[in-house]
Amino acid sequence: MFKRLAGADEARRDLLEQCKPVLRTEILPLNFSIGRIISKNLLSDIDLPAFNRAAMDGFAVRSCDTRGAKPQFPVYLDHFQPIRTGMVVPENYDAVVMLEDALLRGHQIEVSAELYPYKNISKFGEDVRHDEIVFKEGHRLRPPDIALLAALEKKKVEVYARPRVAIIPTGGELVPLWARTLRPGEAYEINGLMTKLYVEMWGGEPFLHDAVPDNFELIRSAMEANLKMDMIILIGGTSVGEKDYAPKALKELGDLLAHGVRIQPGKPTALGIVHKKPVICLPGYPVAALSSLYLFVRPTLKKMAHLEDSISVILAKLDRKIASKSGYLNIVRVELKSDKAIPISASGAGILSSVAKAHGFILIPEEKEGLEAGEEVEVTLFE
Amino acid sequence: MFKRLAGADEARRDLLEQCKPVLRTEILPLNFSIGRIISKNLLSDIDLPAFNRAAMDGFAVRSCDTRGAKPQFPVYLDHFQPIRTGMVVPENYDAVVMLEDALLRGHQIEVSAELYPYKNISKFGEDVRHDEIVFKEGHRLRPPDIALLAALEKKKVEVYARPRVAIIPTGGELVPLWARTLRPGEAYEINGLMTKLYVEMWGGEPFLHDAVPDNFELIRSAMEANLKMDMIILIGGTSVGEKDYAPKALKELGDLLAHGVRIQPGKPTALGIVHKKPVICLPGYPVAALSSLYLFVRPTLKKMAHLEDSISVILAKLDRKIASKSGYLNIVRVELKSDKAIPISASGAGILSSVAKAHGFILIPEEKEGLEAGEEVEVTLFE
Repeated sequence: MFKRLAGADEARRDLLEQCKPVLRTEILPLNFSIGRIISKNLLSDIDLPAFNRAAMDGFAVRSCDTRGAKPQFPVYLDHFQPIRTGMVVPENYDAVVMLEDALLRGHQIEVSAELYPYKNISKFGEDVRHDEIVFKEGHRLRPPDIALLAALEKKKVEVYARPRVAIIPTGGELVPLWARTLRPGEAYEINGLMTKLYVEMWGGEPFLHDAVPDNFELIRSAMEANLKMDMIILIGGTSVGEKDYAPKALKELGDLLAHGVRIQPGKPTALGIVHKKPVICLPGYPVAALSSLYLFVRPTLKKMAHLEDSISVILAKLDRKIASKSGYLNIVRVELKSDKAIPISASGAGILSSVAKAHGFILIPEEKEGLEAGEEVEVTLFE
Repeated sequence: MFKRLAGADEARRDLLEQCKPVLRTEILPLNFSIGRIISKNLLSDIDLPAFNRAAMDGFAVRSCDTRGAKPQFPVYLDHFQPIRTGMVVPENYDAVVMLEDALLRGHQIEVSAELYPYKNISKFGEDVRHDEIVFKEGHRLRPPDIALLAALEKKKVEVYARPRVAIIPTGGELVPLWARTLRPGEAYEINGLMTKLYVEMWGGEPFLHDAVPDNFELIRSAMEANLKMDMIILIGGTSVGEKDYAPKALKELGDLLAHGVRIQPGKPTALGIVHKKPVICLPGYPVAALSSLYLFVRPTLKKMAHLEDSISVILAKLDRKIASKSGYLNIVRVELKSDKAIPISASGAGILSSVAKAHGFILIPEEKEGLEAGEEVEVTLFE
């Protein structure tokens, strides 16, 4: 039995309070910076456009020459120059009359519209001025941002480094994927693979280790050897029993914030801080591990990676009544069919195929004892 | 002037009706299949677990031997075997008694709980049965799915090929990124880069070409040369004027569905079908191109890639009144501050820095003439 189970919100808050965003930076070629976070205010070295640029096909003119022009009372100009979109507007002109409002008549053009200064001109520096702050620290780079930086000739960009995350599966029965045929009692290591893919998706840089056998010294050494990382995730060996070495090692090396959390599935999760680095011990059952990944790894990683922790939900109507374990935050897998959320029939935390059938999950708060059929629920889609 | 402007919804519907999901498939190593779509029902070749597996540390027993056992009336068993989580349950046993309910006493164990068959056992095949359909055609692979396939020893997986998208910028003033110092009137080609990044993000495989000069024959040839692709995106050369070669070429080679759409910005968009392939001509101004990317390229690509077209929105209160061009679908860039959406002051479609400041956009429908301060609006975040 766990001595004391922590509440999910409380446990997460305690962990997040002690995690800091990673301040290490790196300089990347612009092409490789999509989705990354600017680490200091980024100023432009140039003006954009670098010249007064025609925004229309037509004729460059002096705006003052067009005063009073109307379709009924056109003006006739000697000074003008044919121009096409994108071209430099010559210095002595300050407007472009579009083709619809002008007619070439011999050496003159007939202009039927009055133009104000810089009409149909993209003015020098109107997009970005030299020394203007283009992106503030903390900005996440999206495709149009990359395009703007390309126009500003920023070949490299300084961004925050992604949090480095060591992933250490534990368990003597685990065999690296397809390394050899399994012997009775063995299993391929798949939780580490799942965790690695989520760590990448959530903005971290994963380092997946081979499984460490169920041995206290080896697990502690593996933890110690990875303290240069920004976060450590251990998988398995968290249950109370002979083999809960991961939380024990965490306690010996640092602060064990929680061992046993009131979530279902996922109770044997352990959380702690070692040398200011968050250490998260995930349960060995894959569905329980998935709960902990969403409830603890995701917010921690997003904070450390300077990313928004927001998650999209879809509103749906619960298709049938579900019971939940009172006093626990219940994570219920659901399938979506049109606007209905259909709970996946109760199945153990070891049944990964139950997740294959699920579009997402709903959370039933501790104080509830279940949900009624027809209730509106927020479904978080599995990413 | 455009002869006839199409409505945004109508134009999109016409285009989508004629686009089919790509049915070409490819076989990928499992590691590279994250986010991809299963192209045919995927069956398991094995049972998972492959044996009766202990789900607890304890003792393997025969459940019938424990009948009637209670803490006050324990039973004493001669037939048992110590076992740890994950190990094979020997054939002659059908339950595992957990350590809390059993005490080793000499050659016997004292069991204080009655066990039903398969208690604390992950039964052979209970997760996945041989020949069971694990994923149906159309399923998108997420990290726990990859983990399950790994456990099922699926080293490769057949998925739909991503739509191949040719991106062809047009314009004689365009210079490949940083290829050389710009001469007056030139600009670096950045719309193609932005489009390429979005095509990747939205599930396509982009092929970005060097810019084609403003020449009808060359633009038509470039279009023809790319008809082996699944989609063609041309950028620039869409305005009515001397140079709207892209829509002209589209019309000559296939069906021009729309040239000029009632969206603001983005009006000079053209849409069509050539040899059953969608061809989308984006306006040359980057902000207008961005509108068209979201309104036309995104849904088309998602459909062709077998992906959901859903897009997340955030609800916010409009910070101040905004006018909109009546009869047009207006795409208004907004900055988010707490729960407020602050419109980015009117700026031309050439001002990419206005997007840098925007978190997302709101859509004002054709029939509206603007929105009032305080109205609740749905903000689509720029991805």
